[in-house]
Amino acid sequence: MNRVIIGICGGTGSGKTTLAEKIYNEFNSCTALVSMDSYYKSDFSIPLEERAKCNYDHPDAFETELLIKHLKELKNGNSVDVPQYDYRNHLRKAETIKVESKQIIIVEGILLFENKKLCNLLDVKIYVDTDADVRILRRIMRDVKERGRQLDSVVEQYNSTVKPMHEQFVEPYKRRADIIVPQGGYNAVALDVIFSCINHKLSENSGGKLYAKSI
Amino acid sequence: MNRVIIGICGGTGSGKTTLAEKIYNEFNSCTALVSMDSYYKSDFSIPLEERAKCNYDHPDAFETELLIKHLKELKNGNSVDVPQYDYRNHLRKAETIKVESKQIIIVEGILLFENKKLCNLLDVKIYVDTDADVRILRRIMRDVKERGRQLDSVVEQYNSTVKPMHEQFVEPYKRRADIIVPQGGYNAVALDVIFSCINHKLSENSGGKLYAKSI
Repeated sequence: MNRVIIGICGGTGSGKTTLAEKIYNEFNSCTALVSMDSYYKSDFSIPLEERAKCNYDHPDAFETELLIKHLKELKNGNSVDVPQYDYRNHLRKAETIKVESKQIIIVEGILLFENKKLCNLLDVKIYVDTDADVRILRRIMRDVKERGRQLDSVVEQYNSTVKPMHEQFVEPYKRRADIIVPQGGYNAVALDVIFSCINHKLSENSGGKLYAKSI
Repeated sequence: MNRVIIGICGGTGSGKTTLAEKIYNEFNSCTALVSMDSYYKSDFSIPLEERAKCNYDHPDAFETELLIKHLKELKNGNSVDVPQYDYRNHLRKAETIKVESKQIIIVEGILLFENKKLCNLLDVKIYVDTDADVRILRRIMRDVKERGRQLDSVVEQYNSTVKPMHEQFVEPYKRRADIIVPQGGYNAVALDVIFSCINHKLSENSGGKLYAKSI
C-alpha cells in the first residue's frame, strides 16, 4: 500500500486546522491526523510563570525530532503514541493518544516547512495563505472567547512573538509548498480539488474503486 | 455530462502555458484547450508600426466578450471557431481553428481573473505564481531566441508596459484564485494533484472508471 503524507502549513488563524479536519472528516477511516502542536516541548523544571512567557512560535519550542520519528513510523504502517499538550499549564500531559497508521497521513502546523528534514518527509505540501488581518481576528476570537484569555495579553503576545516569528519562520517557507490554498478551510473549490486528489489516490490503492463518501 | 472549465492565470513567463499544455497532453481526448492570447483585438486600420507599440498587456487589448461567448458555448457542449493571432503582424489571421467541446475545458491567459464576468465562468481557478526574475528570464529567452526579437526592445517593452500592467491587472487578481501553484508547469507534485483531481472528475462522468492514461 502506498501511504501518502500530506503536510498543511500556514500562519496562526490561517485555517490550516480547519482544512486538516475537513479532510479527516471526509476520509475518516482512511486518514490519520497529527498536529505539530502536540509536540511542544515540556519542561517541568521551569516555573509556570516563566513557561507562560516562552516563545511558542520559535522552532526550538517543538520536539521536532519526535514528530519526524512518528511520521516515519506512520509512513511505514506502524501506530504511534502522540503526546497531548495542556495549554493552560504549558506542559505535556501524562497520557498519550494512540494514532494508527492509515493510507492518508495528515500533519498540520505553523512550522512544518521550516525544518528541512521534516519538510522532506511530506509527499504533498499545502500552504494555507490567509491575510494577516483575518488571521489575527480569528486568533483573538479563539483565544479570548474560547480560551478565556485577556485581550491585552493576546495582543502583546502577537506583537512580541507571533508576528515576528511568522515573518521569520512561516511566511518565507511558503516557497517550499507544492500548492497554496488561499482562505484555507473555507475555500470550497480548493477543498474539492484536494478531496478529488485524495479520492483518486485511495482508488489507486483499491484497484480503481472510488472512496464511498466522495463529494 | 458535467463539463468543467479550468482557468489558468499568471504573469508572463510564469509557466501557465506549460501547465495548460501538460494537462492537455495528459487528458488529450477529454480536453479542449483555449488561449486568451488568441483573442487579441485586431485592427487593420492602424499602421504596423503603431500596432507594434500597442499595450498588449492591458485588458483593452483583448476581445474578452468573444472569449466569454466561446467559453459559454464550450460549457454547453458546442464547438467554437477560435481566432488565430499573428504576432509578427499584430493582426488576426483570416483562418480560425475549430475547437470541439470536451469534458475538461482549459483556458489560460495573463488577464483571466481580471475580468469579473470571465472569472465567474471558471469552475477551478489556478494561479501560477513564479518569481518576477525567473519570469523575465524566461520571456527574454523566448522572445530573443525563439521569436528573433532584439534584447533592447524586449527590455524596453517589459519596463514600460509588461511590468506595470502585471502589477495592476495580474498580481492583484491572484486573490481570486482557488489554488496557487508555485513554479507552474515544472511543479511535479502540483501537477500530480491537478491530474488526480481531473482524473477523479472524469471518472465521476463515466461511472467511476478511471481515465486510462493516469499517472
